[in-house]
This record gives sequence, C-alpha cells and structure tokens, in this order.
Amino acid sequence: MCRWAAYRGEPLYLEELVSSPAHSLIEQSHCATKAKTSTNADGFGLAWYGDHPEPGRFRDVLPAWSDCNLKSLSRHVRSPLFLAHVRAATHGATRRDNCHPFVKDSWSFMHNGQVEHFADLRRRIESMLDDEHFNARTGSTDSELLFLLALQFGLAERPLEAMGEAIGFVEHLSREVKGMAQIKFTVAFSNGKSLYAVRYASEGYAPTLFAAPMGRDGGYCLVSEPLDDNKDTWAEIPPGSAVIVGEDGLDVAAFTPFWDAAKVAAE
Amino acid sequence: MCRWAAYRGEPLYLEELVSSPAHSLIEQSHCATKAKTSTNADGFGLAWYGDHPEPGRFRDVLPAWSDCNLKSLSRHVRSPLFLAHVRAATHGATRRDNCHPFVKDSWSFMHNGQVEHFADLRRRIESMLDDEHFNARTGSTDSELLFLLALQFGLAERPLEAMGEAIGFVEHLSREVKGMAQIKFTVAFSNGKSLYAVRYASEGYAPTLFAAPMGRDGGYCLVSEPLDDNKDTWAEIPPGSAVIVGEDGLDVAAFTPFWDAAKVAAE
Amino acid sequence: MCRWAAYRGEPLYLEELVSSPAHSLIEQSHCATKAKTSTNADGFGLAWYGDHPEPGRFRDVLPAWSDCNLKSLSRHVRSPLFLAHVRAATHGATRRDNCHPFVKDSWSFMHNGQVEHFADLRRRIESMLDDEHFNARTGSTDSELLFLLALQFGLAERPLEAMGEAIGFVEHLSREVKGMAQIKFTVAFSNGKSLYAVRYASEGYAPTLFAAPMGRDGGYCLVSEPLDDNKDTWAEIPPGSAVIVGEDGLDVAAFTPFWDAAKVAAE
Amino acid sequence: MCRWAAYRGEPLYLEELVSSPAHSLIEQSHCATKAKTSTNADGFGLAWYGDHPEPGRFRDVLPAWSDCNLKSLSRHVRSPLFLAHVRAATHGATRRDNCHPFVKDSWSFMHNGQVEHFADLRRRIESMLDDEHFNARTGSTDSELLFLLALQFGLAERPLEAMGEAIGFVEHLSREVKGMAQIKFTVAFSNGKSLYAVRYASEGYAPTLFAAPMGRDGGYCLVSEPLDDNKDTWAEIPPGSAVIVGEDGLDVAAFTPFWDAAKVAAE
Repeated sequence: MCRWAAYRGEPLYLEELVSSPAHSLIEQSHCATKAKTSTNADGFGLAWYGDHPEPGRFRDVLPAWSDCNLKSLSRHVRSPLFLAHVRAATHGATRRDNCHPFVKDSWSFMHNGQVEHFADLRRRIESMLDDEHFNARTGSTDSELLFLLALQFGLAERPLEAMGEAIGFVEHLSREVKGMAQIKFTVAFSNGKSLYAVRYASEGYAPTLFAAPMGRDGGYCLVSEPLDDNKDTWAEIPPGSAVIVGEDGLDVAAFTPFWDAAKVAAE
Repeated sequence: MCRWAAYRGEPLYLEELVSSPAHSLIEQSHCATKAKTSTNADGFGLAWYGDHPEPGRFRDVLPAWSDCNLKSLSRHVRSPLFLAHVRAATHGATRRDNCHPFVKDSWSFMHNGQVEHFADLRRRIESMLDDEHFNARTGSTDSELLFLLALQFGLAERPLEAMGEAIGFVEHLSREVKGMAQIKFTVAFSNGKSLYAVRYASEGYAPTLFAAPMGRDGGYCLVSEPLDDNKDTWAEIPPGSAVIVGEDGLDVAAFTPFWDAAKVAAE
Repeated sequence: MCRWAAYRGEPLYLEELVSSPAHSLIEQSHCATKAKTSTNADGFGLAWYGDHPEPGRFRDVLPAWSDCNLKSLSRHVRSPLFLAHVRAATHGATRRDNCHPFVKDSWSFMHNGQVEHFADLRRRIESMLDDEHFNARTGSTDSELLFLLALQFGLAERPLEAMGEAIGFVEHLSREVKGMAQIKFTVAFSNGKSLYAVRYASEGYAPTLFAAPMGRDGGYCLVSEPLDDNKDTWAEIPPGSAVIVGEDGLDVAAFTPFWDAAKVAAE
Repeated sequence: MCRWAAYRGEPLYLEELVSSPAHSLIEQSHCATKAKTSTNADGFGLAWYGDHPEPGRFRDVLPAWSDCNLKSLSRHVRSPLFLAHVRAATHGATRRDNCHPFVKDSWSFMHNGQVEHFADLRRRIESMLDDEHFNARTGSTDSELLFLLALQFGLAERPLEAMGEAIGFVEHLSREVKGMAQIKFTVAFSNGKSLYAVRYASEGYAPTLFAAPMGRDGGYCLVSEPLDDNKDTWAEIPPGSAVIVGEDGLDVAAFTPFWDAAKVAAE
C-alpha cells in the first residue's frame, strides 16, 4: 500500500500537497491513517507538467520524510498538473526504477494497490507487450507493467477504456492461471492535459480515493487520504469509479474492467 | 529513538540477531513495540570484531528492511562480538556518517536516546574535545559526540567511569545553559574484548535494555527490546545500571554520572 | 578540482549548460580537459533562483553522468540565475552535505580549488564562526567553510570585500600555523540578483575561469572551462580577478585578499 | 568496459586485491590503464565464499574509491575464493541490481565486455530463459543475462561448455537478427570450489586477462589488468582461452563458443 496525491488547476507549488498540509504526503510517509501499513518509506516520486509535453520527474529511494532534495524541489517547482507518490513496496526492490510515478512520453502514472499472485503472472503479462512497450520497462513492479499495458491498449486515444482493458486482461489471466483474480487498483494518471483517477478492486476493499477543490478557478486535488481534518472538504470517491479532472472541472463515471478475448486473438 | 542489539560469546552469524529471530532487529526497524516510535527507518549499521583490533563496519541509509547488502552480510559474517543498530533520527540528517555504531580505533559505540536541547549545547561540547577527538568527528549526532567525549575522558582505561563523566559533563553543561538536563542514554559499546551497556536517563523514563543468554558457553545478548516472545529468557535491566559481558559472564552494576568541575579546570 | 558553470540572464533551461552543449557540465564530469583530474564523479549540485528569495537546490552523490534525476530537472527547470557543479573531492567524504552549491538564506556558493593543509586549519577557522554560521555548517569541506566565513564577514553588504577578507584571513592563519599559504579559489556565488565569480590562487596556478555571452538580452555564462570548441566565444578571465554579472552586463575587477588583524581583534 | 579481480587459494583478506596493491582494483576504478575507459565509477561489487554454499555479496552504486563500506569489508572479510568488480556501465542504469558479481544459488559471475546490439537482442535472449531463470533476473544488463543463460544451459554440470553454448547462442542470434555478431567477453565465475575465467571476443580485440600466483600453497589471482608493475609475475592469458583454478593449480584450455541449433529445437 502506498499513498499519493495529484493536482490539476492553477499553477501551485508542489509543497501545497507534498509538505505543507497538516496531513501532507510527507506526513503520510510515516503516519498514514487509512492504509493497511502506516509507513510508506520505500522511496517517493514526483511528476510535474510544465513547458514540455513530457513531465519532469524526480524519484529517489530514501523515505520522503528525510530527503532534503524533495523538500527543496516541492517548494520551488510550480505546476498546473502534477502527481506525487510515497511508496510502501509490495512487489519490486527499493530502487529508483521502481518508484512511482512512471512516465512514458507525455503520460505519467502512479498506483496504490497490487496485483495478487503477481510473481506467477508477471512473465505472461510482459509477453503481451509489443517491443516498444517491453523496452520501455525499466523496473520490476506490477504497477509499471499495468501502465505499459494500458499504453499499449490505447491509453492515448481512450484513456479509461484502455485502463479498463488492462485490468480486464490481467484479471482474466489471473483467473486462468490461479483460478482467481484480485487486483487492488487506486491510480492517478495524466497526459499533461487532464488528470484521471480510478478506484477499483476485483473484489473486497478498494484502496481509498478522495477529491477536494484546491487552488483558485476550479482546481482539484485527488488523494489516497485527505490532507487535513476538514471533513467537509473531502469527498470520498466510491469503489468502481473513474474520475476525470479537466477544463470543465471534475467528473465521476463508473469504471468497469473488461476483456475481449476475441479481439486480442485477432491482433 | 532507535533499536539495537549486541552480542558477546562463541562466534555467531550476525543474522542470529539481525534478521532470523521472530522480532529481529530488521523486524524492529518497522515495528518496534517498546519505543516511542515504531519505525526506525533512518539507516542502520553493524560493527563486528574479528582478526583485527578495530572492528569491521557497515552502515547505510536505507531502512534496514529493504537493504539486500545488510541481509547478505548478516548471513555471511560471523563474530564473537558485534553491535547492530537501526536508527530513528532525532538529531542529524540521514547519512552514513550519522548511522551507528560509531567507531574509533578498537572502540565501537551505539546509542538509543537523545540529549535534550542538543542544538544549544553542541558547540560547547565540541569545544571540549581535544584535536584528536575533534578531528575524529565525521557526523553531526549527539550520540557520536558523547562517544568521543567518553574516549577523551579515558574510555580505554576506565570504561564505565569515563562514560559516567561524559554524561555528567553534558548534564552539568545543560543545567548551566538551559537550567535543566535531560539525557536519555541506553547504549552499548565495546573494545573488542568486553561488551558494555548502560541504561540511564537524567530523569523520567530510561529507554529499555534487556539481556538474555545466547549461543553456547556463556554468551550473552543485549537488546533494546526482546528478539522473541519468550518472556522467561529476557531479563530487563533496571534504569541506572551498567552491564559488563566479559570472560566471566554478565555483571550488572550501578551507573551514576558525575562531574568533577575542579578536575576539568585543572586540565 | 571540480568543474562548474553559472548563468545570469533571460530565463534558460538548466540543461543549456548542464547537458546540452558539446562539452556540457555532465560531459566534463567524466572528461574535463583543463583540470588536473579529468574525472569529477564525487557528486553534483544545482542551485537556481525563481520566485522565492532563497534558491531551489538539488544535490546528490552519484556521478553526474549517471543520475536520471539531474537530467530531468535540468530539462524542466528554467531560471534567470543558476549555479551548477560537479565535484572531484579533495576534502570531505562523498555525501550530499559536501556537494556544492552551498546555500544559506538567499546566498549560494560553489568552489573549484582547495585550501592546502586544511586539516590543520579547519578547527581554527570554524572557531572564528559565530553561532549562527557555525550552526549553519552541515558538511565538512573547506569550500563550505570559506562560504560561511564570507557570509559572516559581510557578504550581503560587500560581496567581494567580504570574500577577500575570508581568503585573507585563511591565508593569514595558514602562514601562522604552517608557515605558508596556498589557496586555490575559483568560485561563483550569488544572492539571486547578481552573479559573482572570482579566480584566484595564493601563488602559482589559479584554476581557470571563462566567460561568454549566452541567451538573449545580455545574459552571461561563467564556467571552469568552455562548453564548446568555439574559441571566439569564450574569454578567459585572468587570475586575481573578480567578475560581476548584473543588470548592466559583465564587469571584471581586480580581486585581492586582505586581512586586517586589528579589526578582528577589536570585534 | 569494467575491471575485475578474482582469487582462489589460502584464505586472504579481500583488501589484498581490492585496496592494498599499488594498482589495486579501487585504484583501477579511477585510473585503469589497459581499458578503453580509464574510469570505472558506475558501482562495484564483491562475492566471497565462506561457510555457506552460496557466496556472501556486497554491491553498491558509488564509485569504489569513495565507498567507506567497501574499504572496511575488504579489510575484515577473509575468504579462500572471491570475486571483486568495478563497473563502467555500457548497458543498464547505475543501480545495485546491475552491479556485478551476479549470484544464483552457489554460482557467482562477473563480466568485462559487452554484447554489441544488445538492445535489439535482449528480448529474444530473455525469451530463451525458462521460468526459474527468468524470475531470477533482477537487473537489465547483458552480463546478467549471459550468466542466466549459461546456468540454464548446464553451468553446474559442464561449466565451460555451458558458457560456450551461451556465447554461441547469442552470436548465432545476433547474426540472424543483425547480420553480425560481436561479443566481448572476459569473465570470471565460480561455484565456490573452482574459479573459472574466460577471455574471448567474437572478433577483434578481446579484453585483457592476466593470472599470477598469490598467497601461499598454490593460490592464484585472475585480473583484468595487473595489480602491480612487476611484469614477471603476471602472465597474460591469450584470447580464446578458458582458465580453471582448482585443487591442482591453474589450467588453461581453449575456449570456443558453439551453438547446436538442432539441440535447442529438440528441447
């Protein structure tokens, strides 16, 4: 279980989410309250959009609370759209390549949750990737693999459908290989224009997702858990939902994974 | 608050304390039960005695639970006398130079606790050091400074008296500068022959210290908190005590800091 | 011997100095041509000015050529005034606290060179610092100490004079203690408004310093060695010089250390 | 291009190769003389055999010259058979998982050289691995992949033949995919009993390999380049050779890669 926070709106210093709030992301790196594990000390990462199509990125392996670079960057970098993550490792060693957000071209992605039985599924999922996406893999996490799969399935053209297919495929594969499927999947991702999030679990408890207005002019913040105690501010997004924050504010839709075996066979 | 474990006896693989027990030191790095903070993720360190007078040492900044070097070393290095530590930083950044154990010549030292108001006392304590001990300082912790002070006060000749003087001096200084003194000081240290430990607090609660027989032939283990649930094995050492593990087994004596201002003036 | 590059002018992406040029700073981290040592692999650092009075800072210990964070930041951060440094350690371990630029409040500072016999002078120099500047010291380099000394001597009010006094004091001390003085001192420093540089050696060869126009509207770049082979672009600054890049372009003046013992005695 | 040193004989402190000689491995990390690149600063590693079937291992990402853990371990760990490596990255980021030696069960392996066009071959080579060896891969280097391939081809039963098949397969594949094959392959590997080395290049220059007696009782040292200037001591091993250091001293045999396509098709 990890913790994350994302923002889209008027340019904001990253510290507004990362270090300044009472229950900031750095605070959550040692005392998360809504996670199975209160400590998220296996590295951290930032991706922020600015003048280039692709986001800037900064990832490192120390606990977020003790990294002075993170504090300085969060205070000095301002962005209209950014993702920030603190990691509690489930699959994959503590190294920069395994820290979220993952980035390919203009897309960024971060994940709280996990794919059950990933060790037994990993190779088959990787073999689904075409060469471009296979070569883009630099770490060993389930999260990065879900991201690459979604990219291959058309994230750029149909963001939520492609994400639904990625999850659907892995659930399908897991049922085939292990007789069951359990993916916990609360994620945020972006192309630098809109900010997307999903809260989903194949069954049982889906890791939490909250939204709140932030900044001026219709900005929104999406988080694993609220950044302060002001209960009126934070709306819990229900399981099985997708969130889109764009030009026109925040929208919530149903999120349903699906898998069309016929289509893949045809490819 | 940190956690530590030390051993003297027949040669033992370090993993017997560091990673194998149910509540091993690595386990305590994320779920200590008898400490103020359950997470001790600001680095770790080992010092072990072998064929050389000075101990081998290995320190690094990742949480102990995620460092593969620590696991391999603990499994492959065997020693009749070693110290192991996981850190929760109070004073001093997360960097190798601030990780325990500290080593000078044949002496090693590790600490759980802290000097209250250290920022206000640090410079005056450092100015007490002669050039040799001043130049030996590479980090910025209160712990390293107490160790160097004790070395200068004669740790090699009168281990427990010198340690008592170091504490006595800092308490005296703190009363002078801040009108009060509060040192929490549960430590282990060694010259490669005997293993020493102290449990002490200027006032109030002294960080815990436990002892248990370990290995064959009268070996002993000293720890911040027991390595398993077997309550019959572990004897709690009372506050205000010093422990000596040597050729003839384990001895406990009273530990009382003292400070002879006249003597220092005469130096 | 280290390598550095600094810029003041229209906002520029840091990569314009750090990674894009043929002989960029990252390139110089493994093949510097005008330094005693061609490898500068003991860490690196950036300080850049933006919306806050104090600069953002990013430092780390890997060789600059292999750090992906450095590449991403340099590409995404844009600033009208920044300093960048790659380190070849002379005094002080490879750790973040020993990487340049050093920063205090709105001032930043980086250094190529060294104080000969620093180990014998260090304690006396540190004892010159008042509490504020002593407590600001987090590393163990000669460079950081020269910076703090200059700050204490009035860097904010009289930048070049204070720097001259800092050097003068250390030369004086070195002559007293060691019978000779040898400081190599090619530095850049800034308060976020002007960019200053000095090229100086007590005797013999002073580490090189070059200047070139860069960007539009009268921007300038100051470097240890030219960023490309275009010899017409780069003007070598002679030893014993100070450079000021400000609103009105680039000025060069003589730099002479001095030390008024009487004044210090009076303090 | 990397540098390495290996030893088999009477137990020796690792420092005898790593840091003590005039041209020790640490010295070679910044001034190798017989390599294309004189700097080998992209991490380092040790594997040493002791009481357990599998070797102890220590790898890290700093340049070898600046890592205090490496110095202490090399001085305090003694072993009758060990491998030591300093890395200059060709394929794969600077991270622990990409540092040599690689280890699986009782086998260790380190490499100087590279597979030309590895990016175009990597996926096909990985797809040759069975699940056990595929899952054992944690890094992204060509070196680790050659090691896993050799293990799968029977390194445990027929060490040099299996290594010859691994090279033969990759050369065959490279010719198929790229119309040419160029592997530079100077390696050492061990099962904790014998020490093996190979010097080979598909064509052109094969990275150097030298042998010298070391320690008492018929010990031998194998290295990328001599550890001192004593030319009489070091015998250059010719290209296309395998070396075996075992109970009965040092043997040199021809090394010829081969690839039996029929056999693989039958598997």
